[in-house]
Amino acid sequence: MQTARIGATPKGGICRLALTELDREVRDWFCAQCVAVGCTVTIDDMGNIFARRPGRNPALAPIAIGSHLDTQPTGGKYDGVIGVLAGLEILRALHESGTDTEAPIEVIDWTNEEGSRFAPAMLSSGVFAGAFTREWAYGRADRTGDTFEAALDGIGYRGPERCGAHPLSAHFELHIEQGPILEDEDRIIGIVTGVQGMRWYEVTVDGQEGHAGATPMRLRQDALLATARMIQSVNAIALVHAPDAVGTVGLVESRPNSRNVVPGQVFFTVDFRHPDDAVLEAMEQEMHAAFARDAGALAFAVTQVWNNPAVMFDGACVDAVRDAAAALGLPAREIISGAGHDSAYVARVAPTTMIFVPCAGGLSHNEAESAERHHVVAGASVLLRSVLATDRR
Amino acid sequence: MQTARIGATPKGGICRLALTELDREVRDWFCAQCVAVGCTVTIDDMGNIFARRPGRNPALAPIAIGSHLDTQPTGGKYDGVIGVLAGLEILRALHESGTDTEAPIEVIDWTNEEGSRFAPAMLSSGVFAGAFTREWAYGRADRTGDTFEAALDGIGYRGPERCGAHPLSAHFELHIEQGPILEDEDRIIGIVTGVQGMRWYEVTVDGQEGHAGATPMRLRQDALLATARMIQSVNAIALVHAPDAVGTVGLVESRPNSRNVVPGQVFFTVDFRHPDDAVLEAMEQEMHAAFARDAGALAFAVTQVWNNPAVMFDGACVDAVRDAAAALGLPAREIISGAGHDSAYVARVAPTTMIFVPCAGGLSHNEAESAERHHVVAGASVLLRSVLATDRR
Ligand SMILES: NC(=O)NCCC(=O)O
Ligand SMILES: NC(=O)NCCC(=O)O
Repeated sequence: MQTARIGATPKGGICRLALTELDREVRDWFCAQCVAVGCTVTIDDMGNIFARRPGRNPALAPIAIGSHLDTQPTGGKYDGVIGVLAGLEILRALHESGTDTEAPIEVIDWTNEEGSRFAPAMLSSGVFAGAFTREWAYGRADRTGDTFEAALDGIGYRGPERCGAHPLSAHFELHIEQGPILEDEDRIIGIVTGVQGMRWYEVTVDGQEGHAGATPMRLRQDALLATARMIQSVNAIALVHAPDAVGTVGLVESRPNSRNVVPGQVFFTVDFRHPDDAVLEAMEQEMHAAFARDAGALAFAVTQVWNNPAVMFDGACVDAVRDAAAALGLPAREIISGAGHDSAYVARVAPTTMIFVPCAGGLSHNEAESAERHHVVAGASVLLRSVLATDRR
Repeated sequence: MQTARIGATPKGGICRLALTELDREVRDWFCAQCVAVGCTVTIDDMGNIFARRPGRNPALAPIAIGSHLDTQPTGGKYDGVIGVLAGLEILRALHESGTDTEAPIEVIDWTNEEGSRFAPAMLSSGVFAGAFTREWAYGRADRTGDTFEAALDGIGYRGPERCGAHPLSAHFELHIEQGPILEDEDRIIGIVTGVQGMRWYEVTVDGQEGHAGATPMRLRQDALLATARMIQSVNAIALVHAPDAVGTVGLVESRPNSRNVVPGQVFFTVDFRHPDDAVLEAMEQEMHAAFARDAGALAFAVTQVWNNPAVMFDGACVDAVRDAAAALGLPAREIISGAGHDSAYVARVAPTTMIFVPCAGGLSHNEAESAERHHVVAGASVLLRSVLATDRR
């Protein structure tokens, strides 16, 4: 893959955070490839890229194939990228075979899907679908304080089109599963029927900095010690609701982070997920109660920065994927996505579904992420068939 | 204080990490002030600065007044600085009053006392006293990978004198207590009889990065979750040996530190202290046992990066401080230092002691650190009397 060179890490993964120079580079490459197969490229004011191949009937809204080209800081070569590249291959195949479709076909690169640089994830498909306002998204800042808006302008990808003013008649997304189920059961295709609910929180714990050698234990207000209890509570709450629930503290920043200073302040994040929003609500309440105990005498603040309820995908789109897998004789099963995807937002404004293929060991958000070439090809074939079947309807 | 402007923070503290541009600035200022009162300034190859006022008898090794001008990232205006500035005021007073001493009087700025940028603390007084080799010290790297040697050259403070080739006939250090005892008991002077033992460790925990949404709880190898248990163990071990023991995890770095990635690796530090080295040894063993439990199936590695045994100061020097406080009618008490100080190393090669003055609330390594002006003046008076009494002996 060409794209795997842009941001390649020594351990074989990719670090291509949203709206960085490397993101610009992969976007430039993608746009050039699309233009080379006769597509028109438009960009909206959230940096989402739409590469359109015209259809016979200009009155029809396009059928879209979308995913993302950004990665985690230690991400893999498959997460997101295969969805965009499969779309590009389909544009190429249609172009080279001279196949005409009724509706236009569009391949979309959604901006900042990972949510690693700018929280929350799926920020720009979220604006597209009306889940967030553009102004709120513009103001989201990374951990160095740079805003989404400044970063978007920095790489020259603020387009003229108003985000969301772009009707789609359907949206399909090919993605690696990022979990262990398909591999476990030896299936090649996951027919994705929905996405579980997910909530993100930001927590700040305020203690008091003190000398590590001269401050007696009884006089300490150690923000990191309280945080250690909270990290265990997040884990314990997820275990209570397992196997369906997950809970993660993925980011922690301790201040001043000096070996001989009692930590004065800690910032950390919580990620809770469950297919049932009512359980997520219970987990949130349990977290508030646990943190109040864990904090002891220390002050703390919890902010919910993301609440993305569980999503059910469109029946007709799901059927198209099921039929395509059956027609190709590929072992398939229905599956609920554990990860969030742009499709979860696009589903609010267009009939949508996804196709999963297995990844080795269920490993993702890891430089060792990998997928079998023939699985990805099978997924792309299901994608093509689903799109063409939708076009014929 | 002039020095408080160099690296001033918005919250009223100082951030002047060792061997940064700000450190160069305060050193340049200090050297100029010393030259202005007729001193000769020499610098050794660890960047330690010696400002000498000649005595009547050139055969005598100097009596030194030393401390440090570096600070913590969110440090105060008193820690270290008052010891150097009191020395400078004494040079000025001797100069202006035309007072002659038998031995030369030297004021010393020791490099990288805090140990925040380059671990361990008191690195350059340690080389001076033969506790570390110069080459080992040169190779110490900060968290961005920059070495001590490169940073020293970067600010132009590698002097021609070989570190350690500089005999001293005594060493006195004025410092804030950094703990609550003097204030608690309404004493103005701490007659420091020794420094407790301290050990530093670096710990790396290796888990496996995974997707926070799609990796079931039972398949996780969460390095931060294991670290959370270890942080609590450090605290529990210190509490077992309290009130004399302290234990701190001051620095933690989680990788890749992304909200939706199960943490794959964590680096953190441990600081254990106790006046009795045997208890410190027991705490170390307890830590190894606890971490082995806390890690579960995860791999981890612990390195002891510093072992500074408890120190007893010189009886004659301690007597000089006691006598000076009594002569001035200042309420005083003997005290063991909870913090490490350059004097703890210099004591290996010259008769040494320290003078403590109270700080508000016992607070140090905190931007809110403060001390009463008249306490600092009292401490400087005790310092001057102790130095002159030693000179007369
Ligand atoms: N697919 C994927 O990794 N999305 C990132 C958003 C999330 O699920 O955390
Ligand atoms: N005095 C002081 O704060 N020294 C720093 C070294 C330590 O005690 O941790």
